Parts: sequence; structure tokens; C-alpha cells
Amino acid sequence: MIKQERVSFLGPPGTYSYETAVSHFNPSTHEFINQKSINDVFDSVRSKEADYGVIPFENSTYGSVLQTLDYFVLNSKLSDSKGNYLNQKHHTSFLIDFIIHAEHFLNVHHCLLSISNLNDIEKVYSHPEALGQCSDWLSKHLPHAQRIPVGSTSQGAEMAAKEFGSASISSVVCADLFKLNIIAQNIENISNNTTRFFIIGSEMAKPTGHDETLVMFTLNHNQSGTLCDALAIMKKFNLNLTKIDSRPSGQNLWHYMFFMEFEGHVLDEDVKLAMNELCVVCQEVVVLGSYESKRNAS
Amino acid sequence: MIKQERVSFLGPPGTYSYETAVSHFNPSTHEFINQKSINDVFDSVRSKEADYGVIPFENSTYGSVLQTLDYFVLNSKLSDSKGNYLNQKHHTSFLIDFIIHAEHFLNVHHCLLSISNLNDIEKVYSHPEALGQCSDWLSKHLPHAQRIPVGSTSQGAEMAAKEFGSASISSVVCADLFKLNIIAQNIENISNNTTRFFIIGSEMAKPTGHDETLVMFTLNHNQSGTLCDALAIMKKFNLNLTKIDSRPSGQNLWHYMFFMEFEGHVLDEDVKLAMNELCVVCQEVVVLGSYESKRNAS
Repeated sequence: MIKQERVSFLGPPGTYSYETAVSHFNPSTHEFINQKSINDVFDSVRSKEADYGVIPFENSTYGSVLQTLDYFVLNSKLSDSKGNYLNQKHHTSFLIDFIIHAEHFLNVHHCLLSISNLNDIEKVYSHPEALGQCSDWLSKHLPHAQRIPVGSTSQGAEMAAKEFGSASISSVVCADLFKLNIIAQNIENISNNTTRFFIIGSEMAKPTGHDETLVMFTLNHNQSGTLCDALAIMKKFNLNLTKIDSRPSGQNLWHYMFFMEFEGHVLDEDVKLAMNELCVVCQEVVVLGSYESKRNAS
Repeated sequence: MIKQERVSFLGPPGTYSYETAVSHFNPSTHEFINQKSINDVFDSVRSKEADYGVIPFENSTYGSVLQTLDYFVLNSKLSDSKGNYLNQKHHTSFLIDFIIHAEHFLNVHHCLLSISNLNDIEKVYSHPEALGQCSDWLSKHLPHAQRIPVGSTSQGAEMAAKEFGSASISSVVCADLFKLNIIAQNIENISNNTTRFFIIGSEMAKPTGHDETLVMFTLNHNQSGTLCDALAIMKKFNLNLTKIDSRPSGQNLWHYMFFMEFEGHVLDEDVKLAMNELCVVCQEVVVLGSYESKRNAS
């Protein structure tokens, strides 16, 4: 009998993470493990409880998932265990105890689910990101309803199923799972609402010729123009940026960790050269992963 | 009798916005108006209900206040009403119907407030940012308590005062206001936890020689290296960046609005020249304000 690979996701079943897990991995050869938080998904991969984890990274309407970025900031320990092909002069290491292995784009269509009629709804439960993605519809149709953030879209559905006068914003899957009526469909602010997930694992994905790489780095913020210097390196090597973001580094007051994503694989020659130069300009560089780009397939 | 200026803040009294309002403005010459949301604070200034508004912008531990960034993205209408000193060739305008007039740094010390003992606490109410800023303490001392996000730290205190077995994360001011006991003090993850507020109004602040400017802009994301080009302009004019951030622009899928803050006033000659060049590289540039830097005074 072939050992099934285990895939962690933010549960309960019915979440968009679950939808991504069962669509990215073959359910007949994979076992799916329900986790209570995004941090638990990460931890399950690092502790080898799971082979892969499904992590929401950003939504086209509501932006980056801060919990995910902050997990990277706080937990991406540098490690040389698998070799470091970068310039050893610099205090920079390039491999960590988990890595982004793939990306997956999911079209997200939210529904309003309830056991009550629209006119009787006084409370709406959902994940904060989903409440944000449907703010226009809520302001128009339920202007006086209280918006109550909960841990996941499925948890919202579970709560709405138990309480008259409440509703949840969840996927259509949850209507069946929790025996709720679909009061309204496709209530997201922007119709092509898409969430981008990362599949994390322990092995780097092989280059396909159509890849993207995500790195994070800090800069000496007392030195002027360093972010410009970092981006100039990417331009010099013709590496097109696909995203840049920043979060407090937790190291000093008003000191930031930058996230930069670009086209190319960390094993490509031009990317290697660019990363070597980046390490000279930045205080710390961590490659979070290289993976086949699915951007235009979504 | 002298007409009192009106100052809007995110209420109820007891919030950190309130603390900022009464510390930034003289209470004997200003009237303070309580608002229900950050959006309402913005709207009250734009409708002239208030002369000034107090807006949380970023926290040293938890990063940018997304609601504030998104209000800028969605509501900063371009207007030529007060003159446009920029190159008229470009479809860019530099004044809007509200402007950041000043900044104010507030040291934020959170308390756990309750009518119950620590051992009996099963729920913790607070603003999502405050829950984030105290996550370490909560994980250690109340690992099983449900963390329930509400509209403001004061609203959390109001709810905790009515419900046995619940607590709030709020300022020490709320203990008195809502007759709650202080169960623990200074429970923030990082001891020098600081929130940076903007004071918005209708008039641009005069240059002081020690100013900062916040702009937002979009880029043609089909063109490679444009963010690098934008930052290179800032470097060319020796304008030191103090912050960069991005949010979905709402215009296209995976298209971003960038926020860039730098040292200098928009009426300084070098800033004028830089902004002229920035307008050539960017699709849209909006100056959100120039204000005296209080960064080193905090």
C-alpha cells in the first residue's frame, strides 16, 4: 500500500483553504488534516506532522494576509542544513525549515447564508478578510447589521446555523455542510475576487522556466536610498517584480521587513547573481521559495 | 466669544484616538466629537462637520491600519480647486478635499480589564489591532480564551463591563470610565509599542524645515522596473524614504496602490522637482499631505 501524503489546511472543511487543498491535491492519494489557525498549518509542516500545508497569501480585493506575512517574519529561521550557495562573506543564509513549493489561485465567490430571512438578519459572522471583501454589499443590504469577525468562514457558518437573526459570509459548500439557506450569491465587492494560496513543504520546487520567487529582507533604515538600491539590482538583471510589501520587523521601532516577489527561479543563473548583490545591500535576505507561476492560468 | 474648533475622533471616550485628540489639541479651546468608525472621522472632516480628524495610521508592532490606507485608496478624489502647481501635461493633481495636517505619536500601553478574576476569563474583547499587539501575553496567560474583535478598545471595555467571564484589552483610562478592574498592565508584545496618528484637516501645514510627505501612486504593472524608477527619483533628489506600503488599487486584478513617505515638504523646491518627475513614471500621484516630523520627538 502506498503511503498517503498528508496536507494541512485551515479548517473546518468548507473553508476556501479546504477548497484549495482538494483542488490542488488528488483526494484519492492524499489525506487532509484540519487545523485551527494559519499558524497551526505552518507548524504542522515544520514538525513533519504534514507533508504540505495550504496557506492563504493574498486576496485581490483585500490585500495581503497579515497573519501569513507575520508568521514569515517571526518564524523563518535561517538554516544552512541544505547547503548555501550564496556568497559566504555575508551573514545571509538562503534555506529555511519550510519553503513555498507551489502557488494556487482560487476564484472566491462569497454567499450570505442564514436560517433567517434577509430582513431579520442583525448579525453577520465571517472571517475578517471575507467581511472586508463583501463590505459594499453589506453596507447596501444590511447597513445596520453588526459585522462579527470569527476565525474562519466555516466557523461563521457554524455559528449562523445555531442562531436565529444571524448570517454568515461563506462559500456555497457551507450551505450544504451546515444546512443553511443561500440568501444571496456572489456578494463580493469585485466580481473577479481571487485568493492566492501558497503550498508549503520541505523541498524546493524544480525550475520550470516560468517561475516566481518570494524573498524577504531588512534594510539599514539609517542609510538613505537602500530600498532603491535593492530594487535597482532587480532591474539590472531584468527580474520583473510581481509584488512588494512590508511589515514591522519586530527588531526596532519603525524598522520593516520587506517582501519582494519577482519572476525567475532561485536556481536560475541571473537570479543567483542578483541575490548575491542583494545580500550586499540588505541586512538579511531569506528566500521563502521559488515555484511555478500560475498567474496567467488563473 | 471665540468659536471653538471641532475635532473628530474614533470614540467612545477612552480610545487611544481620544487620548491623542486631547493631548494634541487644547481641550479648553476645542470641542471633541465622537465618531463610530475611522471612515466617519474622515467623512466628518470632508463634510465640514469637524475642522480636524484624528486618524490612526500605523502601529510599531502591528503595522499599517488597513482601514485607513483603504479609505485613502477609495476616497482621495483629485481636485484642482486650490491650484495645481504641477506639470499640467500629466493627468495628475496634487490637492484633495482633505489633507494630512500633522502627525502625533502615542505610546500605547494596553491593560487587561475585567469584572472577573483572570482564571474565570473565557472571552477577550478588543479592537483587532489591540488583540494583535497583545497576542504573546494572551497566548501565555489566556491560551483558551476566545479573542473577539470589536469596533474599538473602548467598545470592548463597555462589553466586558456587562458580562461576567469576559475581559477587554483597553487603555488604563477605560478602567475608570467603565468601572473595570485592571487585571494586568503593559501586556503589549513589544514594550515601546507606539501608534502613529495623523491629524487631518482642510489646510496644508506650512513647511518647518523638518517635514515629511506622504504620497500614493499607481504604476503600469505591465511595464517592468517602474517601482524601481519611482524610487530612483527619490534617491536622485536625496529624499530619504521613511515608509513604503501597498494595497490593492481596486482598479485591476493584482494592481496595487503604493504609499510612499519621505523627508521633505511638498512646497520644498527639491520635492517639487521630484514630484514632477514622479508624475512621468507613475500612472497617478496624489499627495496626501506634508507635516512636521515628530519621529524623533516620540
